[in-house]
Amino acid sequence: MRSAEAESCDPRVARSRAAVLAATVDLLGELGHVGTTMEAIAERSGVAKTTIYRHWPSRAPLLIDAFHTRVEHGDHQPTGDVRSDLVAIGCGLAAKLRDPQWSRIMATLIDAAESDPELSELSATFTRERRESVRAVLERGIAEGELDPDIDTDLAAQLVSGAIFYQRLIRRRAADDDDVEAMVDLVLNGLRHRG
Amino acid sequence: MRSAEAESCDPRVARSRAAVLAATVDLLGELGHVGTTMEAIAERSGVAKTTIYRHWPSRAPLLIDAFHTRVEHGDHQPTGDVRSDLVAIGCGLAAKLRDPQWSRIMATLIDAAESDPELSELSATFTRERRESVRAVLERGIAEGELDPDIDTDLAAQLVSGAIFYQRLIRRRAADDDDVEAMVDLVLNGLRHRG
Repeated sequence: MRSAEAESCDPRVARSRAAVLAATVDLLGELGHVGTTMEAIAERSGVAKTTIYRHWPSRAPLLIDAFHTRVEHGDHQPTGDVRSDLVAIGCGLAAKLRDPQWSRIMATLIDAAESDPELSELSATFTRERRESVRAVLERGIAEGELDPDIDTDLAAQLVSGAIFYQRLIRRRAADDDDVEAMVDLVLNGLRHRG
Repeated sequence: MRSAEAESCDPRVARSRAAVLAATVDLLGELGHVGTTMEAIAERSGVAKTTIYRHWPSRAPLLIDAFHTRVEHGDHQPTGDVRSDLVAIGCGLAAKLRDPQWSRIMATLIDAAESDPELSELSATFTRERRESVRAVLERGIAEGELDPDIDTDLAAQLVSGAIFYQRLIRRRAADDDDVEAMVDLVLNGLRHRG
């Protein structure tokens, strides 16, 4: 959602774009999506509304670009051990959710996605990278014979991440690293008694 | 959060309370928590703002009472079979989340809880009954020797519900009954290969 001007090399353009995005992220973290109006963004960033509208035709694409600045970029380095990799990815998510700005942004994205079709797709893409990392670990575990070849990796990849989100955003108790390890072990081993 | 007047037997009082609560639920489902202002509630319900304030001193306790009218009341009848009971509870949640009003209310509660301490506690209680039903099934499975006595039932109870919420509210793909059954089986059996 970048205009031709935004792609230019003019450093003033880059600076005002960066200021607008930073202000938008701050406001989303403080006020949620509803308080993040174009007026509030202009006031916080010091960039005139007319200039903001030159870069982004409406609020939704600006919010989308702002949300994207908070998407994590894959810094997960697989160790080759299924359990260690799942614990590392889960602990990374739990840590993100202990950051009040990130969890506020995630919560407001969930609400915004229900009412705004432009933001709906974003919610799925926002978390896709982590889901794909988990699936890659599971697929490797299957290939190496450690995991059951019949598991649906798409559904299995949701179990630990889902529980971490649930514990923080719905049950409202941040998950710590011990919770994550225990949940990874439950998912790997299953609940059934094997006596 | 009921005033003495609200507890009276005057049918006009009961009618206006019911009208206010119904209007609040409708607005939460349509507009989310931010659009559900006292002005909007008064207009939708036809009850004067002064009367609404006589029943609820501020907006938060009114929203809490309105959310409570949408809390499910335990209609889960345990069959005695762990898998059937977990599937039934999970399918009940997935069905709730396919109701656009319920999922909208859940999403807006998640966002509201981040910014409003009075609503924060509500989010945890809103889902407590289901969590306790799941734990009861797991505890019975342990007592009967079907489930591993070492599992942490508190964390285990989050896995399937968490994945159903995650799939619908974050990944934005409603879970169907097949997804729920597959996830219950994954959680019961674990991902490890036992071939």
